[in-house]
Amino acid sequence: VEVSRGKSILAAVGDNMVSQPGVAGDFLSALGQAGVNIDAIAQGSSERNISVVIDGADSSRALRAVHSAFYLSKQTIGVGLIGAGLIGQEFLKQLQAELAQLRSSFGIDVRVRGIMNSKRMLLDGKDERGVPEIDWLSFAHHENSKSADPNFFINHLNSSHLPHRVIIDATAGDSFIHSYPEWLKSGFHVITPNKKANTQSLDFYNSIRTAEKAGKKRFLYSTNVGAGLPILQTLRELCQTGDRMIRIEGVLSGTLSYIFNTFDGKIPFSEIVKEARKLGFTEPDPRDDLSGTDVARKLVILAREAGQKIELKDIEVESLVPESLRDLSPTEYLDRLSEGDPEMSSELARAHSRSEVLRYVGVIEESGRASVKLASFPRSHAFSGLSGADNIVSFHTTRYRTRPLVIQGPGAGPEVTAAGVFADLLRLASSLGAPR
Amino acid sequence: VEVSRGKSILAAVGDNMVSQPGVAGDFLSALGQAGVNIDAIAQGSSERNISVVIDGADSSRALRAVHSAFYLSKQTIGVGLIGAGLIGQEFLKQLQAELAQLRSSFGIDVRVRGIMNSKRMLLDGKDERGVPEIDWLSFAHHENSKSADPNFFINHLNSSHLPHRVIIDATAGDSFIHSYPEWLKSGFHVITPNKKANTQSLDFYNSIRTAEKAGKKRFLYSTNVGAGLPILQTLRELCQTGDRMIRIEGVLSGTLSYIFNTFDGKIPFSEIVKEARKLGFTEPDPRDDLSGTDVARKLVILAREAGQKIELKDIEVESLVPESLRDLSPTEYLDRLSEGDPEMSSELARAHSRSEVLRYVGVIEESGRASVKLASFPRSHAFSGLSGADNIVSFHTTRYRTRPLVIQGPGAGPEVTAAGVFADLLRLASSLGAPR
Repeated sequence: VEVSRGKSILAAVGDNMVSQPGVAGDFLSALGQAGVNIDAIAQGSSERNISVVIDGADSSRALRAVHSAFYLSKQTIGVGLIGAGLIGQEFLKQLQAELAQLRSSFGIDVRVRGIMNSKRMLLDGKDERGVPEIDWLSFAHHENSKSADPNFFINHLNSSHLPHRVIIDATAGDSFIHSYPEWLKSGFHVITPNKKANTQSLDFYNSIRTAEKAGKKRFLYSTNVGAGLPILQTLRELCQTGDRMIRIEGVLSGTLSYIFNTFDGKIPFSEIVKEARKLGFTEPDPRDDLSGTDVARKLVILAREAGQKIELKDIEVESLVPESLRDLSPTEYLDRLSEGDPEMSSELARAHSRSEVLRYVGVIEESGRASVKLASFPRSHAFSGLSGADNIVSFHTTRYRTRPLVIQGPGAGPEVTAAGVFADLLRLASSLGAPR
Repeated sequence: VEVSRGKSILAAVGDNMVSQPGVAGDFLSALGQAGVNIDAIAQGSSERNISVVIDGADSSRALRAVHSAFYLSKQTIGVGLIGAGLIGQEFLKQLQAELAQLRSSFGIDVRVRGIMNSKRMLLDGKDERGVPEIDWLSFAHHENSKSADPNFFINHLNSSHLPHRVIIDATAGDSFIHSYPEWLKSGFHVITPNKKANTQSLDFYNSIRTAEKAGKKRFLYSTNVGAGLPILQTLRELCQTGDRMIRIEGVLSGTLSYIFNTFDGKIPFSEIVKEARKLGFTEPDPRDDLSGTDVARKLVILAREAGQKIELKDIEVESLVPESLRDLSPTEYLDRLSEGDPEMSSELARAHSRSEVLRYVGVIEESGRASVKLASFPRSHAFSGLSGADNIVSFHTTRYRTRPLVIQGPGAGPEVTAAGVFADLLRLASSLGAPR
């Protein structure tokens, strides 16, 4: 006989419990998933009791895990939101409005366990019930809010006994993207509207996919192209069901869509750009839009989704900023914006002479060639009918070879982007077994 | 001491097995899911053995269940295909081409355990490995094929030890729709491109949803509107994320799209209908298309998806078949088709006088009003740019209120419909935990 010390006994007791198929399994599964070693199992002949011997150090974790297994919905998801700008706040508002409905109709129990911006963070209590909804939007001013500390934030979420946890990166920068692989491996799902991670090197892109598989967790980013429009999701399903991409073509920038939908020759190009800037449609420095880099980023994401091994630098980009204006300060640039007008006017005249209109498009060919360029389209073409700041994408595939599958609509803005992030969260819940 | 007879002992043995968290749980969970009662559990101190006492009658089932739990992918799905017409066959071809990829890249193990048409059926063996791919398309002529027997077919699929099972109803009629609730309750997921079930009475529609919840199984029918186009899926996600439908409007019939995209006044309406019939674009009796019933059915499905409590009879349908021609035999009707031409020509003239074009559309309003009608649209409208036999749907919602979300493309045909059924199968796999 050998005596082991520091052991605990955890017992589940209930009338006729043992004769109900599955109870013992659920009990032991919960311990297994929580990483609790079981030294011995005993089931009393009374059929009212199943007991396990475990390490004493594991006892608190084991108790919580078993409690979760029997009393929580399997779709209980702990959410950590990083970034509370326009998109993050809008997401919280939309989630607030649907929380009760999700719980009652779909059994999805979303708990916002932490919200953090660049300065402050607010975390929920040890009961893991989530930050109360009423504090979501004002979290930074809550008396329990602390200075933002990403490590502390992640650890708080990570020490959870909820069945699932997800980090939503709603920041605009690249501060957190290099943590995605680590997060995925350590048990977090990751959702982001941020394009940065998917436009890094192919090596980094692949490292995220490897981490997804290693951690059996999911990385969701449907809003990277076209915000709430079902563009990436559709492409993914076409590819997964064995369709082959022949050409993807689209107007992928709301800003440039607006500019060329408006540019009909009556007003100089530079005036339209200035007007768009005044309306807040362009970045403060319009060159950030006119350079085509944003469109190129979206093209990389689409091409990679379609299975192409492509880097951002492989994309041929026709910048709409004349070379002579590229190195100017923003103010100088705006002053001299009209210097590009003759070139744009002659492009437009060429298109008009063929009864066509100008659109700034991104194109991915089956061959792997990808380009961002100014092109002209006949008036019967779907791209000609664009108006407002709509995005449009047409998928020419083996199945849609005669006529493409086309998706069109507003492809930017906090409301539709947040809705897309929300849809990703529901897709995640669905993949965890929630009914859709 | 009381002696119980007819008991079996099932033991799992493996080096260090017991110290690996989760093994005991998986073992007991598998038994629980298979409905096997456990009378007693013992775990040897050697840490190489976990044994359970079960009823002798359960022993074969228990052994298979445990085997499945440890040796099968969790995304092993047994499929029964009913209906092997154009869509069913195309689905099998597409699945054949992707089977290996699904298994290796996504861990999804699809096994076609039975194929049945109205005359013959072919089932797989007791090993549940599925009918060999090579026999799929020629199943009806296989030496082991039998006379079609739906009950036998369902029982064969139902006695499965695979983790999941699904019935795909690819028939065109309504022979099987009344079994859907029962199938869902008894453990089958159901996928169908067939519109019949979703256009029955609201009571029946709801009974399917109740059965889904009761059986914790899913009913998938994304191809009911627009075939492979992401129309129903998009509507569902908009609603689930709290968007509110203001108006859904669309050209939902490929046949009527073609007819009105072609009808420009140069050729009489009746000639275009006859030409479309010759090309196989219409039903053998074109009145089945021109009556608007097919569009009304799709409208009911969209409206119900958006949460409206609507019956097929609530939809106002403007039939394109003149009253005087409704009761004729098909041959008589085709002979007298041109009698409707003056009416259609004057409709077209009215539209042209406003510089508009005619389209046959379905419209659902927020108020619950739904109608199928001939309407005219300015040339700048997205519906005017339609060509071929494309479908188009525009979603005007709270979030897409300024500009709608629009989806356009071929919305019929075996290839894109089968692809949509395949996409539903992958959505199902995803909801069972497969990576996407």
